[in-house]
Amino acid sequence: MQLHLSTWPEIESYLQHSKAILVPIGSTEQHGPIGLLGTDALCSEEIARRAGEEGGFLVAPTFNVGQAQHHLAFPGTLTLRPSTMIAAMTDWANSLRRHGFERIYWLNGHGGNVATMNAAFAEIQHGSSINPGHENSPTLRCSLRNWWELAGVSETIRELFPVGEGNHATPSEISVTQYLFPQAVKYADFPVRIAPSGPIFDAEDFRRRYPDGRIGSDPTLANPAAGKRLVETAVHSLVREFRNFAGA
Amino acid sequence: MQLHLSTWPEIESYLQHSKAILVPIGSTEQHGPIGLLGTDALCSEEIARRAGEEGGFLVAPTFNVGQAQHHLAFPGTLTLRPSTMIAAMTDWANSLRRHGFERIYWLNGHGGNVATMNAAFAEIQHGSSINPGHENSPTLRCSLRNWWELAGVSETIRELFPVGEGNHATPSEISVTQYLFPQAVKYADFPVRIAPSGPIFDAEDFRRRYPDGRIGSDPTLANPAAGKRLVETAVHSLVREFRNFAGA
Amino acid sequence: MQLHLSTWPEIESYLQHSKAILVPIGSTEQHGPIGLLGTDALCSEEIARRAGEEGGFLVAPTFNVGQAQHHLAFPGTLTLRPSTMIAAMTDWANSLRRHGFERIYWLNGHGGNVATMNAAFAEIQHGSSINPGHENSPTLRCSLRNWWELAGVSETIRELFPVGEGNHATPSEISVTQYLFPQAVKYADFPVRIAPSGPIFDAEDFRRRYPDGRIGSDPTLANPAAGKRLVETAVHSLVREFRNFAGA
Amino acid sequence: MQLHLSTWPEIESYLQHSKAILVPIGSTEQHGPIGLLGTDALCSEEIARRAGEEGGFLVAPTFNVGQAQHHLAFPGTLTLRPSTMIAAMTDWANSLRRHGFERIYWLNGHGGNVATMNAAFAEIQHGSSINPGHENSPTLRCSLRNWWELAGVSETIRELFPVGEGNHATPSEISVTQYLFPQAVKYADFPVRIAPSGPIFDAEDFRRRYPDGRIGSDPTLANPAAGKRLVETAVHSLVREFRNFAGA
Amino acid sequence: MQLHLSTWPEIESYLQHSKAILVPIGSTEQHGPIGLLGTDALCSEEIARRAGEEGGFLVAPTFNVGQAQHHLAFPGTLTLRPSTMIAAMTDWANSLRRHGFERIYWLNGHGGNVATMNAAFAEIQHGSSINPGHENSPTLRCSLRNWWELAGVSETIRELFPVGEGNHATPSEISVTQYLFPQAVKYADFPVRIAPSGPIFDAEDFRRRYPDGRIGSDPTLANPAAGKRLVETAVHSLVREFRNFAGA
Amino acid sequence: MQLHLSTWPEIESYLQHSKAILVPIGSTEQHGPIGLLGTDALCSEEIARRAGEEGGFLVAPTFNVGQAQHHLAFPGTLTLRPSTMIAAMTDWANSLRRHGFERIYWLNGHGGNVATMNAAFAEIQHGSSINPGHENSPTLRCSLRNWWELAGVSETIRELFPVGEGNHATPSEISVTQYLFPQAVKYADFPVRIAPSGPIFDAEDFRRRYPDGRIGSDPTLANPAAGKRLVETAVHSLVREFRNFAGA
Ligand code: NI
Ligand code: NI
Ligand code: NI
Ligand code: NI
Ligand code: NI
Ligand code: NI
Repeated sequence: MQLHLSTWPEIESYLQHSKAILVPIGSTEQHGPIGLLGTDALCSEEIARRAGEEGGFLVAPTFNVGQAQHHLAFPGTLTLRPSTMIAAMTDWANSLRRHGFERIYWLNGHGGNVATMNAAFAEIQHGSSINPGHENSPTLRCSLRNWWELAGVSETIRELFPVGEGNHATPSEISVTQYLFPQAVKYADFPVRIAPSGPIFDAEDFRRRYPDGRIGSDPTLANPAAGKRLVETAVHSLVREFRNFAGA
Repeated sequence: MQLHLSTWPEIESYLQHSKAILVPIGSTEQHGPIGLLGTDALCSEEIARRAGEEGGFLVAPTFNVGQAQHHLAFPGTLTLRPSTMIAAMTDWANSLRRHGFERIYWLNGHGGNVATMNAAFAEIQHGSSINPGHENSPTLRCSLRNWWELAGVSETIRELFPVGEGNHATPSEISVTQYLFPQAVKYADFPVRIAPSGPIFDAEDFRRRYPDGRIGSDPTLANPAAGKRLVETAVHSLVREFRNFAGA
Repeated sequence: MQLHLSTWPEIESYLQHSKAILVPIGSTEQHGPIGLLGTDALCSEEIARRAGEEGGFLVAPTFNVGQAQHHLAFPGTLTLRPSTMIAAMTDWANSLRRHGFERIYWLNGHGGNVATMNAAFAEIQHGSSINPGHENSPTLRCSLRNWWELAGVSETIRELFPVGEGNHATPSEISVTQYLFPQAVKYADFPVRIAPSGPIFDAEDFRRRYPDGRIGSDPTLANPAAGKRLVETAVHSLVREFRNFAGA
Repeated sequence: MQLHLSTWPEIESYLQHSKAILVPIGSTEQHGPIGLLGTDALCSEEIARRAGEEGGFLVAPTFNVGQAQHHLAFPGTLTLRPSTMIAAMTDWANSLRRHGFERIYWLNGHGGNVATMNAAFAEIQHGSSINPGHENSPTLRCSLRNWWELAGVSETIRELFPVGEGNHATPSEISVTQYLFPQAVKYADFPVRIAPSGPIFDAEDFRRRYPDGRIGSDPTLANPAAGKRLVETAVHSLVREFRNFAGA
Repeated sequence: MQLHLSTWPEIESYLQHSKAILVPIGSTEQHGPIGLLGTDALCSEEIARRAGEEGGFLVAPTFNVGQAQHHLAFPGTLTLRPSTMIAAMTDWANSLRRHGFERIYWLNGHGGNVATMNAAFAEIQHGSSINPGHENSPTLRCSLRNWWELAGVSETIRELFPVGEGNHATPSEISVTQYLFPQAVKYADFPVRIAPSGPIFDAEDFRRRYPDGRIGSDPTLANPAAGKRLVETAVHSLVREFRNFAGA
Repeated sequence: MQLHLSTWPEIESYLQHSKAILVPIGSTEQHGPIGLLGTDALCSEEIARRAGEEGGFLVAPTFNVGQAQHHLAFPGTLTLRPSTMIAAMTDWANSLRRHGFERIYWLNGHGGNVATMNAAFAEIQHGSSINPGHENSPTLRCSLRNWWELAGVSETIRELFPVGEGNHATPSEISVTQYLFPQAVKYADFPVRIAPSGPIFDAEDFRRRYPDGRIGSDPTLANPAAGKRLVETAVHSLVREFRNFAGA
């Protein structure tokens, strides 16, 4: 059940039996020579959508631009400042709390979002922690889950790509988008099969270290069949995990 | 051409012949008993996507939560504070300017966004206006266009719905989503065919004045065929208008 | 009745029979070769003051610097960032709400303020919309009215200046200040009678397009008699409109 | 010479021989039973205006709402949050710097503004202090001067009101407004001649301690003749002091 | 009693008999050729600590970076923007209010902090002043005290250093750190005994005017014995003053 | 070498051979019945100080209040909002960059700071990533290191406390403060030896789940000897790690 394809009376009904919602969150950032700029948002959006159908729970629109300042030297990357992202996530969360939601499960598609998301959770809680009992709405619980860490998914990734998974523009996430968007499978020459690894500082430095945008990965390993397996495993686990979270 | 389904080298190529991009922007807010919460984002997203394919220009991901505070008394509505929306639009625009974009055409799907969007444009320009020549990137031009005001569209709307178009949860926008999302056509009883009209203040007041969320509209008039005609007219005009803007 | 020429016990008395106040708002920005930098603030301030006397209602001090970033290439222009203007208008409104005011009628003198003002209204309402019933003060209604759109005024303008009214540094607003400030009537040579028209982007671009600051106008048409007629028409309508708003 | 009664070419000329401007700043806040809510803004505005005429220097519009949170329990008081005031003063100053101004003399009418004004000066300087040489405009010098501390004024006050001057709603400031606004001289019974003195915390506490709004003062001593003498002394000194500042 | 060397049950007990706490606040900024960068934070921290032991009251950790933008041209100086400092002081104060504290005595070690601190107090009070009765915690009273103005201290300074005390990097504050940190007594040649005096604008200007960082002072006069006398006098007075404040 | 016990000429010299500095960062928050409120700041401060002496590198003052909103239901806890913490860390970092520092090693003492610190790093980098080459100062590299993860430390903790280490108010951190502050060793009865474990949401919820403040730990195991061993191991590793970071 997708919030944006529902009417307000449908949400009013939903709230009578559940106070939990899933918000997919990703990033719009370079993913190397053949990875899509939307990879991180598309993966969490589509895994969430399928799980929501299967599990009968509510899925919000996707928070599609996140924390990607270190990718800015590659065209197409969009980023929020962390302070803006905290403000925007707070507004989304407070809107949901206004309606009676008490549990927000943020399904994340981008490792670079994790820190700012947790900072946003603390900002969201700050009001009721520092002035308890003062709001007219329920206190919220926010939970962050990276899709690649859902039960069974990381194991599947290790099995599918024992070598060359790397850290950014990985064959696993590219496999997922190849499966989901067959019309957008891309090709490129890879003089170096496995990209270099290392630390991340600012955008110019990033492009010097990782000239084609990948970190430690071999995207040529990506294939739609692997993507299918990953999506199905993720959806299966997500249905179970969301149910636990909603009932906790 | 959708940015999130492209790679960074594809955007780098695109920038060699065009500095213009379209950003669809909408809202996630109640649209009466049968209108979708995502109406405003979905309409501009899909009209933009089709025009981008037809016209060969670049379309960004959708800015999908906007200015909807007055709808907050209806479950499912999400809103940003205007100050947050200004910060987020500024971050999107500065990211694009960093890559060399010089023209951003914001295709808007929500009348309630217009004021805050124009305020954001002034905030985006403020830096180069108050300290000219100080940034290392081009100055930007932002343009706002409501899809229902594209050439021919408002005329078509008047022709299709001479009575009952109203101001919110209109048969025209609902027709568009019925055409685009046949799986999400909704039904409801409408004891009152044409909803009341009037001013807008805060959320509680809004729900008292407009108990089912509509303003002045008769959504029962909506139909997929009307939606098809509106989409096609809008796409056709958008291709021409974007081209003019990009070349200006 | 002007707030700044009143004492607090007088305001306390006023609040016993009316919860409505008028705030004049303008801008301090270039108005071409003979228009005053203060035109927009002075027009709304003085029309408001006279209407307040005639109608017996309360007029606040003038919010005299507004949204003028696109005029910054002309010396003397002052501007707030939109985010600052939203914060400041919010503080004015919350101060008034604290005292029991429930209606604020903002009489505006500058078209460039409209977007940011409406964004500010949404920011002002946000608190009570997202957390209803939580403040100890009444909910507010804000209303924006441009003085040149008061009943009868635009008609008078069209009659007085059928040609050459234009969009910025117009003969109508200059007539008003010539009438109100005879000691500050200015003269200049106008090699081009009617200034060019076109779009507005950043400040440098503005000055290139409109080298003397006017847009589409012929200020040589301005005269004190026209100003007198405009002021009297505006005052007359404002008294009626404010009364309706206060009683709504 | 008042900026808002000038044209931009006049300011352009002025800047060829002087880089200095005066900004009157005050507050809109209760001033006891007979003091005007606008006292602090009106005093600095009018003293500045007269000095500007006499000395031939430029006077900006008045920053008319300042720091008055502790007066909020009295109707009519308006206040900015200190953080808003800092943002707004920064915007005014950066606008002036954009045009080439290098000296801003803030003539202050409200003791409660002093702290936030000095904080704002530090915020204004922060940019060029932390990233020297990075702006395209001159560095600014801001100077704060309370009108009652201009040479000769405090001596005159002590002479005029050796007893009963007090700290808020003083006979000296009320004399000034009685002189300047004879149409707005107010009367009240004063069961207690000299108001109590003490510390200032929040608004509710303030009204409990100072039930009619005065601190330590006896406003019945105010008279227009005293106001005239104070204004003339202040104007005379201000012309000299501004000249020194402009040339420093 | 130092908060950071206590447990939460100890603070819970303390609150049963006192609602007052002392927060030392200083700055980390250049103090000339032989003054320590931490002078202002170390002086208030250590005077507070000793007084807390003697008087049995609670002392918070030190707010150790303050307002020092004008010292930024000297290496080692750290500063907050005034707006950041206001936000941080507000967070500290609201945390304390959450626990039931009603009185915060800020013992200050840096003249340059005074304005921003007072602005912060107004920001802290703003919430309860503009929306009285809305928080679930007590209203706070904040008090600012410079250690060198404690009863007897300024007299002692005048006696110890009748000449050469100056305004920044003074022999009195350097004496205090020499007494408290004998391991950190520094030496330098002083071609000019008494540093120049004058106004303060931005950082580059400051270093031009005051090339070694001092203003008006002769630090060669500093000695540990003077520091001992100053600390003892300050501690003695602080115990008494804090007690009065706590009981007020 | 401690910055606050140094003079500016000493920092100027230091910068001629090193561009790296260490900033200790912690939190002021409840640490259960016998843990000190300052535990997290004191541990990183003192480990840093000792390593700075041994390794001859520069240590800044301690950032002593961090992210602790979930501990607010226990008296004595202080917290910044995440947005404030990001602003303050940005100000510290920009101050250091102004002087020529290029590497900031943040030694962290509080797990709850990690997310906001990483968000702050992204905010700090944002300026140079989105507008490369525009600042007059070097680009910065920030690095975060938790003291308990320094080489050898976690192994030592596992060896010392194979059972009962837990997650908050751990015997290892309490051992460190017992060793460092023998005058502040506390005692309490522990009816339950090992505290419960679980998730963290807002402050009220935290206190319900963890009534004495501990999570999963048995603080009765703490002892000064263990603290000594941990400090020595940490200092030894920190000297090596900082050297590598400074030279990278
Ligand atoms: Ni990714
Ligand atoms: Ni709509
Ligand atoms: Ni105008
Ligand atoms: Ni006054
Ligand atoms: Ni000092
Ligand atoms: Ni800890």
